[in-house]
Amino acid sequence: MKFKSVYWDQGKLCLLDQTLLPKEIKYINCSNHNEVAEAIKQLKVRGAPAIGIAAAYALVLASENLKTSNIDTWEDAIDYLSTASEQINVRPTAVNLQFALHDLMGCIVKTSETVQFSLELLTNLLLNAANRIYESDKESCYKIGENGISLIKNGMQVLTYCNAGALATSELGTALAPLYLAHKKGINFNIYSCETRPLLQGSRLTSWELQQAGLNPILICDNMAASLMYQNRVDMVIVGADRIAKNGDTANKIGTYSLAILAKYHNIPFYVAAPKTTFDLNCQSGNKIEIELRDPSEIFSPEGVAVYNPAFDVTPNELITSIITDFGIINPVNEENIKKCLLN
Amino acid sequence: MKFKSVYWDQGKLCLLDQTLLPKEIKYINCSNHNEVAEAIKQLKVRGAPAIGIAAAYALVLASENLKTSNIDTWEDAIDYLSTASEQINVRPTAVNLQFALHDLMGCIVKTSETVQFSLELLTNLLLNAANRIYESDKESCYKIGENGISLIKNGMQVLTYCNAGALATSELGTALAPLYLAHKKGINFNIYSCETRPLLQGSRLTSWELQQAGLNPILICDNMAASLMYQNRVDMVIVGADRIAKNGDTANKIGTYSLAILAKYHNIPFYVAAPKTTFDLNCQSGNKIEIELRDPSEIFSPEGVAVYNPAFDVTPNELITSIITDFGIINPVNEENIKKCLLN
Repeated sequence: MKFKSVYWDQGKLCLLDQTLLPKEIKYINCSNHNEVAEAIKQLKVRGAPAIGIAAAYALVLASENLKTSNIDTWEDAIDYLSTASEQINVRPTAVNLQFALHDLMGCIVKTSETVQFSLELLTNLLLNAANRIYESDKESCYKIGENGISLIKNGMQVLTYCNAGALATSELGTALAPLYLAHKKGINFNIYSCETRPLLQGSRLTSWELQQAGLNPILICDNMAASLMYQNRVDMVIVGADRIAKNGDTANKIGTYSLAILAKYHNIPFYVAAPKTTFDLNCQSGNKIEIELRDPSEIFSPEGVAVYNPAFDVTPNELITSIITDFGIINPVNEENIKKCLLN
Repeated sequence: MKFKSVYWDQGKLCLLDQTLLPKEIKYINCSNHNEVAEAIKQLKVRGAPAIGIAAAYALVLASENLKTSNIDTWEDAIDYLSTASEQINVRPTAVNLQFALHDLMGCIVKTSETVQFSLELLTNLLLNAANRIYESDKESCYKIGENGISLIKNGMQVLTYCNAGALATSELGTALAPLYLAHKKGINFNIYSCETRPLLQGSRLTSWELQQAGLNPILICDNMAASLMYQNRVDMVIVGADRIAKNGDTANKIGTYSLAILAKYHNIPFYVAAPKTTFDLNCQSGNKIEIELRDPSEIFSPEGVAVYNPAFDVTPNELITSIITDFGIINPVNEENIKKCLLN
């Protein structure tokens, strides 16, 4: 990839500002956790794995800022970092964000039980944990790609939605990972990218990213997918995920549920690609997933006209052909197979 | 209604420029048929019935311009008007446009067989025929409204798509006609308007028009409809039509087919509302309807990324609960019932 969506560089978190793409390629450097929280909120960094990574490094930045404070006990440090975690936890649907923060906090709490307090130790622990999340995401993306590549055949027509590519992860992406590996292997396929209203992640980000990687995407409006399917111009749909419940119900960008129904109606396989970190095994089913409502101003309306703007919807497990994970392919999608795949 | 989308005034065709709405309310006056053709092409006037009306008056303007020519025989006049008709016929899908031109040309040809040529007579014939189309459309809209009003119950949640309202017709609309009459009668209902990509007729036109009429629409992106349906927040879908084939297959704004599938999946009735003039009984089925492809530049894409931009799709008859026409309600939708309703 010619870009990195999120990376750590000499004490700063660098983010490719995705609100400016494709017009401008600009990185922002965050030096405290509030800047990262604001970037997550404003979707400068987005995509479940990428915001998990950003949140982890945000906590590292928070710990570095402890240097100028008087905090010198584990208790006070944990209090401070818990507050920082709450401040970073600005988007409710993607579970990776919460898991990353939980992971880092757990690591600190555990160490505090046996080792004497040291600010340097604290920061190192957090940085190592954040680096682990970053590296592990890279590896997960490759594994998803390897696990999914056999689905991509020569001459296929693939439809994807929103952005579940390199921009949404450390590298390579989730839904796009099998496609990138297939492309590298010389497999020819067409790829349709849906523009993804209202923030156009499909046109601004996915089309751009695919083009950067030497693929030739065809862009459509979200409401054109059914027409393409009717014309036999879609052989498979592949999307990412923001949170997958224990039973396989999947929260993803608003409009995903719609595509899953259309795929079923046209007998087209519908795949979700996501790493283990996107599964929330504490969440029984999709109706327990909190759906973020975003600002009405994201959608143009005549003055005074009300707007409903949910950022995600939930696709029930029965509409998903398979979930492609870093631990293997889950098919059919149900609680038992999810457990079998992820917990073995 | 506080506005008129299209009307004839002292030798000029006046069009409310719909590309500027809702920001600017500006009428344009066309004094020759090429200006009207350009306005139709650029969607300054749109909606199947409205472009039928505009096309009819465009032919009147063409005949008026004969005054400065040397044409003094029926043959030459018919030749000239045939060429003008071809120049006006700039959008292939909505059948009203072709029917209106065909109607006016037929009227001239018939008269030419028995009466001596006169330019004044020619223009009067055309103007009378165009006025008839205009008045008949007004009446059709009211009849559609009356035929459909019983479907709208107190407390209902209605979803509509694109613009099939007063802006798309002479007055009152097709899909919106039953809603306007129900509102006037004091029936309370909620109405969701889909923004309708790529040209936003739903947000720019329908929301605005409903607001003007004292209704309080809620605007959503097209990809949010399925989520609303899942939440039991849609009791019926009602849309207009650009062309209805003999068997009831219906061409309408791209995305309509998608909504029809989603409605079926959620067991929600899906209604099409259209006047007799939108039926093309010469067209056997939907796959014979030409679908207009519009300019890729209507959709934002990164430079060099290909775009597919069909303006319409076809909803097969089996996905349509009923068609509400000015001649009654067609249910179930099939060739026999269409004939029974329209040809009796």
